[in-house]
Amino acid sequence: MRVAIVGATGAVGQELMKLLYERSFPLTSLELYASARSEGKEIVFDNHTLKTKTLPEDGNLNADVVFSSAGTRISRDHAWDWCDNGAVVIDNTSAWRMDDRCPLVIPEINGENALGHSGIIANPNCSTIIALMALAPLHKEFGLKRATIATYQAVSGAGTAGIEELRNQSYAFLRGEEYPPKTFQHPIAFNLFSHDSELGKDGYNAEERKLSLESRKILGVPELMISATCIRVPVFRAHSEAIHAEFSVPVTANEVTKVLTSAPGVTLIDDPTNNTFPMPLVASDKNDVIVGRIRPDASKPGGIALLVTGDQIRKGAALNAEQIAEVLLSEGAIG
Amino acid sequence: MRVAIVGATGAVGQELMKLLYERSFPLTSLELYASARSEGKEIVFDNHTLKTKTLPEDGNLNADVVFSSAGTRISRDHAWDWCDNGAVVIDNTSAWRMDDRCPLVIPEINGENALGHSGIIANPNCSTIIALMALAPLHKEFGLKRATIATYQAVSGAGTAGIEELRNQSYAFLRGEEYPPKTFQHPIAFNLFSHDSELGKDGYNAEERKLSLESRKILGVPELMISATCIRVPVFRAHSEAIHAEFSVPVTANEVTKVLTSAPGVTLIDDPTNNTFPMPLVASDKNDVIVGRIRPDASKPGGIALLVTGDQIRKGAALNAEQIAEVLLSEGAIG
Repeated sequence: MRVAIVGATGAVGQELMKLLYERSFPLTSLELYASARSEGKEIVFDNHTLKTKTLPEDGNLNADVVFSSAGTRISRDHAWDWCDNGAVVIDNTSAWRMDDRCPLVIPEINGENALGHSGIIANPNCSTIIALMALAPLHKEFGLKRATIATYQAVSGAGTAGIEELRNQSYAFLRGEEYPPKTFQHPIAFNLFSHDSELGKDGYNAEERKLSLESRKILGVPELMISATCIRVPVFRAHSEAIHAEFSVPVTANEVTKVLTSAPGVTLIDDPTNNTFPMPLVASDKNDVIVGRIRPDASKPGGIALLVTGDQIRKGAALNAEQIAEVLLSEGAIG
Repeated sequence: MRVAIVGATGAVGQELMKLLYERSFPLTSLELYASARSEGKEIVFDNHTLKTKTLPEDGNLNADVVFSSAGTRISRDHAWDWCDNGAVVIDNTSAWRMDDRCPLVIPEINGENALGHSGIIANPNCSTIIALMALAPLHKEFGLKRATIATYQAVSGAGTAGIEELRNQSYAFLRGEEYPPKTFQHPIAFNLFSHDSELGKDGYNAEERKLSLESRKILGVPELMISATCIRVPVFRAHSEAIHAEFSVPVTANEVTKVLTSAPGVTLIDDPTNNTFPMPLVASDKNDVIVGRIRPDASKPGGIALLVTGDQIRKGAALNAEQIAEVLLSEGAIG
């Protein structure tokens, strides 16, 4: 399998390389594309030293599968050209998620949809993936109708620059030094702020809207009602989400626990006796999304509340994309 | 006015001293009580050097007003003795909040209730105060029926030890050193965790239950439905809360904004154009609770969503207690 990574030097691109190696993805070639700034950068993969290139003008990436995580504009401008050159594009940006031609896929939930692609398969937004890993199995059993969600989002959502800013700014803060925000609009060290994406006229920001619209598309429920408050917190790489959910039928905490115990890609950490529940430090570098605090919604009979945490770079982005490629591979749809 | 502070060396006790000075509370004497460990510690107040004492056995604190923030056990064991010695006790612990004999007071909301005390007036829990500063004025207009709340709680809720642990552990983390949790059960640096209070059989922890039960008592609505997820985040001293609320009548974002614009003790920071909303770093050391992200609940027609942030030590504890004393004073109920 000939693979190309567009955005190879970014946090998601780097994680993808780790995952292709870890999961023994059958590679015949690996092409790394990055911006002109990083051109020629040497990156070691499986004892081979590879050099990053800039994107060719003809759109031929010499690949059967292209993973794209170099930003929405790059994907919007080039993805169909890459397809015209014979590649299937697994796109990690928001460019094509809501496009009817492009399936929006979480393999554990709607992996079969990947096979119906017309060239581009979209990877959902990180907070959508992490919420739906818990909500989709429950939807299948009980019919999800409404959810209110509050997120606690790691800085890795803003890439390596976000990670560096949290690190450097925290260090400066503790030393009593100034470190003005650059990547983020507001200080992130020992602070939090409403997600740094554009606000719409409805008062919701783009991140919150993605959670709602992408969930509808993935679950195939156009009337699904989701209201989210997306907040950036000083955490490095795992997102957490506090969710209240209502279903077509009343559900109990036991029923929810039972469903999620056997849900693929989900680990339960739900130990009231030891006050031990999902935490970002524990979810970091893990493949599974961690779920806990499963309890009846005290404000709504039959509803439930829970807490999920998942590695934003891994299941929230790179792992999910790699798993989509695995689906195509196992179905003989590429290669 | 003879004032005593029990727990004078703690974060709340120290803030109380600042506030008594700042707000020119009419003092004739100030007695500082602390644990045996801190006995004799010198603390400067308004150019006088005061020494902390341990609590006298006879319960006579030589005070007209006692502010108690030395922990629930101390308040439970001694508060009525202090009353028997002629003091009004303004209690910052959870000892008496749900006791029918003790009014539970947020001056801007139900200050008049302070006058009906039998010796002890309870100060609500920090997350309750901060949520209700926004929800109570809305309840008055629209009748609050249900709220789901996710909190982002600062470490100051665990006192100076919590603040020191966040500082030291963050510094160690950035230097690649170990700093095992002591005050908290789990690491707080660049992490978050479900609130470190006891879990009940209903799956809710004590902090979440306080939000629900105290809100019912303060608003006088026994049937009020609140479900909270309380989370500790690596922030020093201001709590944030993402709230979805439903009322007896459908409400609009404009109506909510209008009510909160004239609500006492509330500052609106709600600027979608500049993506600027309530943040803990801005709320820290402020008296007002900051409200923003006011928008229709996208998951429930007629409901609303909003974000509040308030200084946990100030309005969440010490300021509210001091304001209760001001109410008593202005009504001639003490002194």
